[in-house]
Amino acid sequence: MSQPLSNEPLIIAGREFPSRLLVGTGKFSSNEQMRDSLRACGTGLVTVALKRANLSSKADPFADILDFLEPERYLVLPNTAGAMNAEEAVRLARLALAAGLPQWVKLEIHPDPNYLLPDPIETLKAAEILVKEGWTVMPYINADPVLALRLQDVGCATVMPLGSPIGSNRGLETRAQLEIIIEQARVPVVIDAGIGAPSHAAAAMEMGADAVLVNTAIAVASDPSLMGRAFAAAVDAGRAAYELGLGAQSRKAEATSPLTAFLG
Amino acid sequence: MSQPLSNEPLIIAGREFPSRLLVGTGKFSSNEQMRDSLRACGTGLVTVALKRANLSSKADPFADILDFLEPERYLVLPNTAGAMNAEEAVRLARLALAAGLPQWVKLEIHPDPNYLLPDPIETLKAAEILVKEGWTVMPYINADPVLALRLQDVGCATVMPLGSPIGSNRGLETRAQLEIIIEQARVPVVIDAGIGAPSHAAAAMEMGADAVLVNTAIAVASDPSLMGRAFAAAVDAGRAAYELGLGAQSRKAEATSPLTAFLG
Amino acid sequence: MSQPLSNEPLIIAGREFPSRLLVGTGKFSSNEQMRDSLRACGTGLVTVALKRANLSSKADPFADILDFLEPERYLVLPNTAGAMNAEEAVRLARLALAAGLPQWVKLEIHPDPNYLLPDPIETLKAAEILVKEGWTVMPYINADPVLALRLQDVGCATVMPLGSPIGSNRGLETRAQLEIIIEQARVPVVIDAGIGAPSHAAAAMEMGADAVLVNTAIAVASDPSLMGRAFAAAVDAGRAAYELGLGAQSRKAEATSPLTAFLG
Amino acid sequence: MSQPLSNEPLIIAGREFPSRLLVGTGKFSSNEQMRDSLRACGTGLVTVALKRANLSSKADPFADILDFLEPERYLVLPNTAGAMNAEEAVRLARLALAAGLPQWVKLEIHPDPNYLLPDPIETLKAAEILVKEGWTVMPYINADPVLALRLQDVGCATVMPLGSPIGSNRGLETRAQLEIIIEQARVPVVIDAGIGAPSHAAAAMEMGADAVLVNTAIAVASDPSLMGRAFAAAVDAGRAAYELGLGAQSRKAEATSPLTAFLG
Repeated sequence: MSQPLSNEPLIIAGREFPSRLLVGTGKFSSNEQMRDSLRACGTGLVTVALKRANLSSKADPFADILDFLEPERYLVLPNTAGAMNAEEAVRLARLALAAGLPQWVKLEIHPDPNYLLPDPIETLKAAEILVKEGWTVMPYINADPVLALRLQDVGCATVMPLGSPIGSNRGLETRAQLEIIIEQARVPVVIDAGIGAPSHAAAAMEMGADAVLVNTAIAVASDPSLMGRAFAAAVDAGRAAYELGLGAQSRKAEATSPLTAFLG
Repeated sequence: MSQPLSNEPLIIAGREFPSRLLVGTGKFSSNEQMRDSLRACGTGLVTVALKRANLSSKADPFADILDFLEPERYLVLPNTAGAMNAEEAVRLARLALAAGLPQWVKLEIHPDPNYLLPDPIETLKAAEILVKEGWTVMPYINADPVLALRLQDVGCATVMPLGSPIGSNRGLETRAQLEIIIEQARVPVVIDAGIGAPSHAAAAMEMGADAVLVNTAIAVASDPSLMGRAFAAAVDAGRAAYELGLGAQSRKAEATSPLTAFLG
Repeated sequence: MSQPLSNEPLIIAGREFPSRLLVGTGKFSSNEQMRDSLRACGTGLVTVALKRANLSSKADPFADILDFLEPERYLVLPNTAGAMNAEEAVRLARLALAAGLPQWVKLEIHPDPNYLLPDPIETLKAAEILVKEGWTVMPYINADPVLALRLQDVGCATVMPLGSPIGSNRGLETRAQLEIIIEQARVPVVIDAGIGAPSHAAAAMEMGADAVLVNTAIAVASDPSLMGRAFAAAVDAGRAAYELGLGAQSRKAEATSPLTAFLG
Repeated sequence: MSQPLSNEPLIIAGREFPSRLLVGTGKFSSNEQMRDSLRACGTGLVTVALKRANLSSKADPFADILDFLEPERYLVLPNTAGAMNAEEAVRLARLALAAGLPQWVKLEIHPDPNYLLPDPIETLKAAEILVKEGWTVMPYINADPVLALRLQDVGCATVMPLGSPIGSNRGLETRAQLEIIIEQARVPVVIDAGIGAPSHAAAAMEMGADAVLVNTAIAVASDPSLMGRAFAAAVDAGRAAYELGLGAQSRKAEATSPLTAFLG
């Protein structure tokens, strides 16, 4: 990666990250491909799903995937995908901690099997418990501005509202609500789920989001390393534009050519 | 610039360009700032407005701006902004040629003072004349698929449909028509006008446009060099995603986490 | 009103309503104007805000507005606007009941002073309490599909997701989430808030919403009676189209003219 | 039909029409069904396609369809669908006149077999010829503001920009350009093509369009009479709202409930 275009680093819970692109680790066709893609895109935070059952049944449960997640490069953020309620999510988080992962968690509770949309009630409940236990909690939520504020009130380190359903590639369908969440936020806002193209990621950054989390669109690409770099470039471009300030939209046209500059 | 992410070069009328970002030269606060921004963004094609009047009244009419447009870096594409009809546009083009510019022209005929929207009739008329005289003609048009085909039929080298009114920063308002133009095109399609943010530029490339032309959003930025680089990065990212192929949008969610990879 | 175009009546909690247009009573310039508008639009359900304080301080607290809400025409639905949490909402509802209003309530809890967006946690909490006490509960919520399901699970009679912030006239900004809520609903879905034009109301019905609640756009119109009728007509038209089934959108054109019907 | 909600009549070329809903006659499953639908929706202007060939080959060429188009109810507007260029369109129009139809024509020239999009050049050419011959010309065009002005300059009685491709049901995809056309218009603007739902028709009227032309969505409905009435109601509602004036969209919410009206 060349020198980034944006200047302000992403800081979550006091830790600085080298990129505003966060990446999920599902759906890659192999661990080798995942490792290469993560390296290529320059991310500093990757999420890993905790399985719901059999958490202690193996001698070396992390062997499979964690060998490929270089701890000197990334914060490995366990997520509670698969948890149906607060209790399950809390239990999963504690098991991850016991297994040696850092005390950070992406809280993800979605009882809905079709759209995998998050449960606001159980998410707040689990967040309260985990924050009290000392966790850095990053909750995945619907684009609900009031819930976002409540999660900040109980001490979450970020809020992670969805752009559209997980894996749908539909981009920022919740844009109007995201704008309000960003306007009111006191912690970093990470747009999570639905980011299916570099332009979606750039648009999220231009709106003032602090980071995006991308998984499917990178993992299933024909070349995940190259696609990861494309997302990284778009995130950087969108963020740089946000930092510089973009022009307002106008109804009327404005001539770019004053018609005096040339041949005059 | 590091190695670009996209692989297929932009070729117009047999000439290869180093970038799919084309840049206009209006509205920069100084020629020095313009020069630096053009260098920084890596473009290989810049447009320059031809003034409507007094075309031959100065001893060295190009001194002011052309000194800053390094010919070894860029194809300098004169545009006919300010022409109200075909006759004026043709006359302007010929004067530019006489003054030593290459025989390329961005045909831009907009009688509308409010929105600076192009005239389809006069544009086709001028294109016919100039193509017969041997010009490489790049017409700026409304997002009109039938007009786009007709301009290709008379031998234009590209079509340049607008995304939204010039200088409006409103992005791809004509997306539905642009998709048809791209689907039917036999020459490169350059999205011109209205591109106000890197995400707009990335989205244009993801749709399959061959290039974008940006001016206002770069020229009036607080740091035009950095903004130029941000647009270049977004164009490259969007194009790479197009070349790799983006996933289809889906109604339902798809879990990114198979819930079996970890702790299993 | 002439014979309605739609055939399936709106039924909430076993009660049939003559119209799918529900109307709020705030912001009218006078009670007389409100009364006339309500009559003109043919609604059968009107909401009335319960004041937060001084609920029992007047001898005849309903005199002012309730004289104008003809009980033989409308179900008067008290709403808890102004409540900041579940406790306040429950207290307001009980006072309304004590004052002689029916045991129906529009549950509306919005701590956010800027956007008046609803609180998911407190809303569910209040709904649970009120349903157990025998209320017919109609909760105003963000467009959150999981919350909508949970409120149905505890026995709410409808869900009332917002289209956009109250009074914003921005229409169906949450369309993607509304579609999911409608698809999964087991009770009537009422689109509440943000409906600023008849086309918004028609679009909500075409999506399959069971009703819309409109207030500002009718109440502040230059002629609230006529605007009420316009919304009623749009609701009826949109519902009829939904019942008949609308054609799918297609990418390609289809000639309407077989070119054989005439002069052949 | 009950008394319409809108008050200002549609007047084209000095003739007043009873409805702002114009209807095409293609695709109905039978002439009887068409007749009933046209009666039910209250339109006063119906278009009929002129076949490209064999225009004079039958003894009574109008027998088939014109028997069902009651001349005391409707202006029968021949359209030139199927014409590939100006010459064919002009010839078709003249044959219709010779056959006894009024000297009005919907000019429709679309060489594009996939999207049936109109040709701007040939349309202007044919319009010039026909206006000079004394025709009332209503041209079907892309949403091109400059072309719309030029057609007005040569004396067309309306402009009929498309919302989206014919038969696509995609609604007002060209909204941004339509707004400019309406703002600049000196003759009635009829939105033609793509109107697939009552909400689309209402939205067109709310924008300030003078009329809409609908065909497919009515003709192929399971009950074309009822669907025709639904479109008529939506057009009337949208127009009434336009005449009354709709509220501006706002970023912030505005409470509808002053929280003082009730129980106070």
